[in-house]
Amino acid sequence: MNKEGLLIVLSGFSGSGKGTVVKKLLEDGSYALSVSATTRLPRPGEVDGESYFFTDKQKFIEMIKNDEFLEYAEYVENYYGTPKKYVMDKLSEGINVILEIEVQGALKVKKAFPDTILIFIVPPGVKELEQRLVGRHTEEASTVRSRMEQARVETESMNKYDYIVINDDINRCVSDIKNITEAVSLETARNKDMIVLFKQQFEQYLKGETL
Amino acid sequence: MNKEGLLIVLSGFSGSGKGTVVKKLLEDGSYALSVSATTRLPRPGEVDGESYFFTDKQKFIEMIKNDEFLEYAEYVENYYGTPKKYVMDKLSEGINVILEIEVQGALKVKKAFPDTILIFIVPPGVKELEQRLVGRHTEEASTVRSRMEQARVETESMNKYDYIVINDDINRCVSDIKNITEAVSLETARNKDMIVLFKQQFEQYLKGETL
Repeated sequence: MNKEGLLIVLSGFSGSGKGTVVKKLLEDGSYALSVSATTRLPRPGEVDGESYFFTDKQKFIEMIKNDEFLEYAEYVENYYGTPKKYVMDKLSEGINVILEIEVQGALKVKKAFPDTILIFIVPPGVKELEQRLVGRHTEEASTVRSRMEQARVETESMNKYDYIVINDDINRCVSDIKNITEAVSLETARNKDMIVLFKQQFEQYLKGETL
Repeated sequence: MNKEGLLIVLSGFSGSGKGTVVKKLLEDGSYALSVSATTRLPRPGEVDGESYFFTDKQKFIEMIKNDEFLEYAEYVENYYGTPKKYVMDKLSEGINVILEIEVQGALKVKKAFPDTILIFIVPPGVKELEQRLVGRHTEEASTVRSRMEQARVETESMNKYDYIVINDDINRCVSDIKNITEAVSLETARNKDMIVLFKQQFEQYLKGETL
């Protein structure tokens, strides 16, 4: 019996280190990262099919009409979405698929696919978060503040997530997510077939049939 | 913040090997096994306070009246029950407590304490179960059959358990249960305090207060 993969949404404050966590999760091949489609133009260094699937607005709207997205949203006049096909193909191969998306998209996916596991990654504390954001040196003070404001807004949705994982030590954080994946696959709700099989086998045995 | 331990109920068909699983879980000290109280007489080799707390009927009934049991039941004119105090003490010390009890008791505990994790341990299949029961050599054919009938009845309650773990390889089974314990401790529902703390810290930061 080839078991389906699990659909895992990873969200977290900007500066929570979720990008690095995802990279580590992809290392052993049991997880795949879903690549989003977008209508915005590629930035220097971005590769089509890796960073994003770059597409034009007309094609994107057609895909919406054909129900080809798990979720999509419009930001600053550009569309972003998660194409359904890639995700479904990987899941049916038994590979867990990670969506690294923000809170609103996460909740949409969970609503459409209740089996989705929502994991929220947090830094050890707000002070550490600020230090990480400042430490990047690529951002101005006003950007740091606006990211902190954004993060505060996101705390309002944290209770909708299934799990909260602290990214203090990266290896610990990655192993926590792997543990969650393993444990979720053992949930009774995901193993109804096994119960049916046991019932059948007991019936056969008690009737004296060969197993 | 000293985190509370988790209350874990392990059930499983006779012959599922759950006794061995429990022994392995106890090895590293992060799990404690709850000892039941009973009014039946000790069998040769049984030690008071280890196998059971042996007590008389009058004392047992008094404990029921004083609400000192997590669950209790009467079988063949004897009482069996899980004393509450030991369990609560261990949980508050941050130690996970295992109850190795049968299905009806498990469901009673879950009803009284919805935070309880119910884990059902199964053999790889019914054929393997029969072979294990026959292989014990301590049981007559009629006993094997009655245990198989009992197991079939228990399959009716499996869907009420939170997790189903296969005991094919003992080490794998034990690590599955440890994984579940780790993952459950990361559930959002069990970490509401953390969300509150993040909200407070963000508010303080955005007001310019020192963290």
